[in-house]
Amino acid sequence: MQSAKPAVVLLSGGLDSATTLAIAKAEGYELHALSFRYGQRHAVELDAARRVAARTGVAEHRIVDIDLRAFGGSALTADIPVPTSPSKGIPVTYVPARNTIFLSFALAWCEVLPASDIFIGVNAVDYSGYPDCRPEFVRAFEKLANLATRAGVEGGVTFTVHAPLISMSKEGIIRRGLSLGVDYGLTRSCYAPDAEGRGCGVCDSCRIRLAGFAAAGLEDPGEYVPGG
Amino acid sequence: MQSAKPAVVLLSGGLDSATTLAIAKAEGYELHALSFRYGQRHAVELDAARRVAARTGVAEHRIVDIDLRAFGGSALTADIPVPTSPSKGIPVTYVPARNTIFLSFALAWCEVLPASDIFIGVNAVDYSGYPDCRPEFVRAFEKLANLATRAGVEGGVTFTVHAPLISMSKEGIIRRGLSLGVDYGLTRSCYAPDAEGRGCGVCDSCRIRLAGFAAAGLEDPGEYVPGG
Repeated sequence: MQSAKPAVVLLSGGLDSATTLAIAKAEGYELHALSFRYGQRHAVELDAARRVAARTGVAEHRIVDIDLRAFGGSALTADIPVPTSPSKGIPVTYVPARNTIFLSFALAWCEVLPASDIFIGVNAVDYSGYPDCRPEFVRAFEKLANLATRAGVEGGVTFTVHAPLISMSKEGIIRRGLSLGVDYGLTRSCYAPDAEGRGCGVCDSCRIRLAGFAAAGLEDPGEYVPGG
Repeated sequence: MQSAKPAVVLLSGGLDSATTLAIAKAEGYELHALSFRYGQRHAVELDAARRVAARTGVAEHRIVDIDLRAFGGSALTADIPVPTSPSKGIPVTYVPARNTIFLSFALAWCEVLPASDIFIGVNAVDYSGYPDCRPEFVRAFEKLANLATRAGVEGGVTFTVHAPLISMSKEGIIRRGLSLGVDYGLTRSCYAPDAEGRGCGVCDSCRIRLAGFAAAGLEDPGEYVPGG
């Protein structure tokens, strides 16, 4: 029996990354989950990431510290209020270059493992409009990865960045996840959770998530503040 | 009088980045120097970076902590000996995805400043053969930057990654730096310096540097261990 092919899976602890992890597992990969403590307001995500990683059964889960608060510039990493209604254009919750940074670290880990597959739960349908969630971004990173690395240049490795959710609706993502046994009660998506980790119910992320469950005719098992 | 255009300059404290900083200054940019404490053996570089930044006169110098030792995989970030003779192929001092990670952080800072220019002192002539020092890597990152960011997608900004040294010889870099007043006595290039920060004289980086000074008919003002 051939041993499973390793993959690095970016895991925030939200609905999308939990689904992505389940998809990578269903595709037979050995899972190396990667999370970041990046100064986010919603660090409760990391507890969710730990729970999701444990439940899914990963080979390894690493949490890397990087201080994006050093730069700020986002409602998630600086003292800028999280909006409670839809924004025009790219919202202030956009974190400058976040997915570029996350994928760069995933690439570093890939070279060391070694692995040639990275999974990221970006989605360009029911999303906040972030530029680093679009297919053209993912393809550009993949191209960069193959030029940037010893593995790509000398090792004959071709890196693939898998973004299995990229063209799915939130409803479709939830249905897919449920079919794979994802427990969405473990996940946390809110940009501004309360001290107990409950979702606000009104930020972009909560609204998109709740609408996805509603479209699927299901109740969101996540916890929300009363009246949120 | 128009105020100077800001640029983020990656500054390791070595010969190449000090020269790059001087070139950015000569081109009239307002300098925002960026260094990383990434678990490198040669952390003495950071003292050099501070001295170089202060001497050159930067608007700001930030040192960001990122733990690349979490992944290892390089003689600079793990317990792998630094070679003292030339390697065949890409040497073990290659740090997986390092320049991709560094440029990603520079990009994040650019978006926040805001700035659209990044300087990096990579060189693909007298160098260690790292894949992320080549022109095709720099161009691929530039393309990614313009797809990855709010500034690039919505803000009408076109990011430029300047790599002014990329096709220069080490001798040419040194001559250019001296003409701009760089004090190479402040810089540190060694991959495996001693406790006092003196160069070993025999690692790839020391050898290329010493050969550059020799080719220019000059004495390297850097400090080396006796007999190194």
